[in-house]
Amino acid sequence: MTPTRLGDLRISGERLWASLCETAQFGAIPGTDRGMCRITLSDEDIAVRRWFVAACEAVGMSVTTDQIGTIYARRPGSDADLAPIAIGSHLDTQPTGGRFDGILGVLAGLELVRTLHDAGITTRHPIEVINWTNEEGARFAPAMVASGVFAGEFTLDHALAQTDRDGVTLGEALARSGFAGDELPGGHRLAAHFELHIEQGPVLEAEGLEIGVVSGVQGIRWYDVTVRGQTCHAGTTPMHLRRDALHAAARLALAVDAIGRSDPGASLSTIGLFQAYPGSRNTAPGEVRLTVDLRHPQVPGLDTMEAALRRAIEALQAELRVAITLTPVWSSPPVEFDPDVLSAIAAATRRLGYSHRTMQSGAGHDSVYTARVAPTGMIFVPCEQGISHNIAENITPAQAEQGANVLLQAVLDYDRGANA
Amino acid sequence: MTPTRLGDLRISGERLWASLCETAQFGAIPGTDRGMCRITLSDEDIAVRRWFVAACEAVGMSVTTDQIGTIYARRPGSDADLAPIAIGSHLDTQPTGGRFDGILGVLAGLELVRTLHDAGITTRHPIEVINWTNEEGARFAPAMVASGVFAGEFTLDHALAQTDRDGVTLGEALARSGFAGDELPGGHRLAAHFELHIEQGPVLEAEGLEIGVVSGVQGIRWYDVTVRGQTCHAGTTPMHLRRDALHAAARLALAVDAIGRSDPGASLSTIGLFQAYPGSRNTAPGEVRLTVDLRHPQVPGLDTMEAALRRAIEALQAELRVAITLTPVWSSPPVEFDPDVLSAIAAATRRLGYSHRTMQSGAGHDSVYTARVAPTGMIFVPCEQGISHNIAENITPAQAEQGANVLLQAVLDYDRGANA
Repeated sequence: MTPTRLGDLRISGERLWASLCETAQFGAIPGTDRGMCRITLSDEDIAVRRWFVAACEAVGMSVTTDQIGTIYARRPGSDADLAPIAIGSHLDTQPTGGRFDGILGVLAGLELVRTLHDAGITTRHPIEVINWTNEEGARFAPAMVASGVFAGEFTLDHALAQTDRDGVTLGEALARSGFAGDELPGGHRLAAHFELHIEQGPVLEAEGLEIGVVSGVQGIRWYDVTVRGQTCHAGTTPMHLRRDALHAAARLALAVDAIGRSDPGASLSTIGLFQAYPGSRNTAPGEVRLTVDLRHPQVPGLDTMEAALRRAIEALQAELRVAITLTPVWSSPPVEFDPDVLSAIAAATRRLGYSHRTMQSGAGHDSVYTARVAPTGMIFVPCEQGISHNIAENITPAQAEQGANVLLQAVLDYDRGANA
Repeated sequence: MTPTRLGDLRISGERLWASLCETAQFGAIPGTDRGMCRITLSDEDIAVRRWFVAACEAVGMSVTTDQIGTIYARRPGSDADLAPIAIGSHLDTQPTGGRFDGILGVLAGLELVRTLHDAGITTRHPIEVINWTNEEGARFAPAMVASGVFAGEFTLDHALAQTDRDGVTLGEALARSGFAGDELPGGHRLAAHFELHIEQGPVLEAEGLEIGVVSGVQGIRWYDVTVRGQTCHAGTTPMHLRRDALHAAARLALAVDAIGRSDPGASLSTIGLFQAYPGSRNTAPGEVRLTVDLRHPQVPGLDTMEAALRRAIEALQAELRVAITLTPVWSSPPVEFDPDVLSAIAAATRRLGYSHRTMQSGAGHDSVYTARVAPTGMIFVPCEQGISHNIAENITPAQAEQGANVLLQAVLDYDRGANA
């Protein structure tokens, strides 16, 4: 097997698309074109897990599961001393999700192994296709819990004790599923972790690009904000005597929007929750509760945004005679992916001739946690209008194929180069 | 009885205050200083009605009730051909109300009659003190229903069929109370209707004035507004690609505020309800629902405000790529009170030497409806911080006394002048 021949290797776009369509039967929402409901360890999730295990075993992979139900399907490499190159993502979905978020990454891993299998190629490293349990967090909080346990972010006991709406624990659901294994999560080393994913945002489509080389995941800071003024009667209180919490909160919303626009291409700001109290048509609100979500790829950027938010609050308090409290509730530092993994992805993309850009991931993925314990990188493909976590989520067969070819070529590059 | 002697006549501030305190036992909220819960035709309302009837009969008044339970306590005049000068307001309260809203107007009428009785003065017109049923609208919708039926705004059958939270109709509650009378509401003419009321707003207190001569009630227009953009992920959607309904609604809130400030002293605007959907911390809202309350003393002013609101919506739709619907839900035209009644009130206020201003009422009162069938005017006294519909509602004994003296002198003036 010459390097030239490996560089010419391509996955089968048709077979990959067929896998995506076939597995979509497990949890398809009736009456929708592509809507999926495949909550973690539901009957539908159990069904797709069985399908996945059978498909992996059919191409000679050995399948194990760990104590949180994560599935590791391994194809041996030529060097018994090397840890596996992992290709991981997740097969669970949101309650009204799509058939690509996470699923593309796992099935592209399967397709990659099928391609190697058909071509009779043996890599140096073992190849391990991973289905991380409960990435979505829709049934059990938090999201990305299994990769989090793998990386030491959460303890196994804590994760297994999480309950769903009906009071069923993750541990109980696992026991019922038959997918609770013996291996301790994090009990084996990964040489690298590659994740192919849909962008879940509109950037690649808007810029007409085929591939995103994902250099990291931006940092996130969440805040609760309460604006307190004074409730007053809509008909009896002159405008200049009011301390209208709604007006102050609206001004704050504009300040938050400006903070999101302050560093174009990097800063993002969102007010997701916003409600006025007491909520009476003829009463000016005395209180507004809202949330602020600030994101930036770098810590100094986050610091600058937070400082601007605090300044805006100070100014509004002074000007509008309201009291505003800002309470930080969560902070996730930025993640930078591994340069060697990114280099392999970028080189593969260029070789394949796909238009591309380097970009940050705005959303969290299992790769956020694997990056703590293994060289990690991600590949994005565009999705229609950037829509995800929605039954309208969509990509084209060509986009799936291009992403999987980048994955294949990047893994092959990394396999040859990383420990060469 | 000479005019000079009548002009010197004063009510008893102590006796009026004692009445306010004594009747506050009927519905006082335990553990509060002055909080009241005296919902229409509750046991507490029935108790204060009995107290009121007994007090009126004790000074020789004859008491009748109409078919919606409104109480008319009449003191005869010297001219049998004249319709009564009415002094009306209400004894019911909000569920967490105060002891002055409405109550002051009724008890000041009683105090006026007691004063005439003690001085042995007979007016030309009969004097009729009226307790209008269900002014607050807290138990039965709508507010001011009995004066509304009296003025022909609602039919009696419609009003009696209104139900409370427990499904009890106003008619049933009336039958139980023993206050359902025979007289058809509106079945007798009023020569005039005077109403003394707390301002329920902060203007008089802020300007250090003792009396408000209320020239009318401003017009009100209510709207429902829906702002539709597109839900998007907080982490994956660049600011410039968003169609953020919250941002657009915040901009609209600033426009609404500016509309309220556009005609100082006349225009008022309020957003009472404001909620963002779907209401997820990491999702930019795709929809915001809010309400707009516009008020102005004149129809052209209301028209100008509404036009400005529509222009602001058009501009925001074009700029921010959102869809905004504006749905008018209620409109109450401005009311102008009677010049002769107002002239009597203003003259009495000047003669008494009280600082005062002419002002509009921002809230609705029974006088809004009596103005349709009788010359009507209102007198305001300040209330602490403008707070009303609240257990903190408060006025001083001196404020109650000043208001009642204006009422007395204005009624005496009107009695001599209106048909002289």
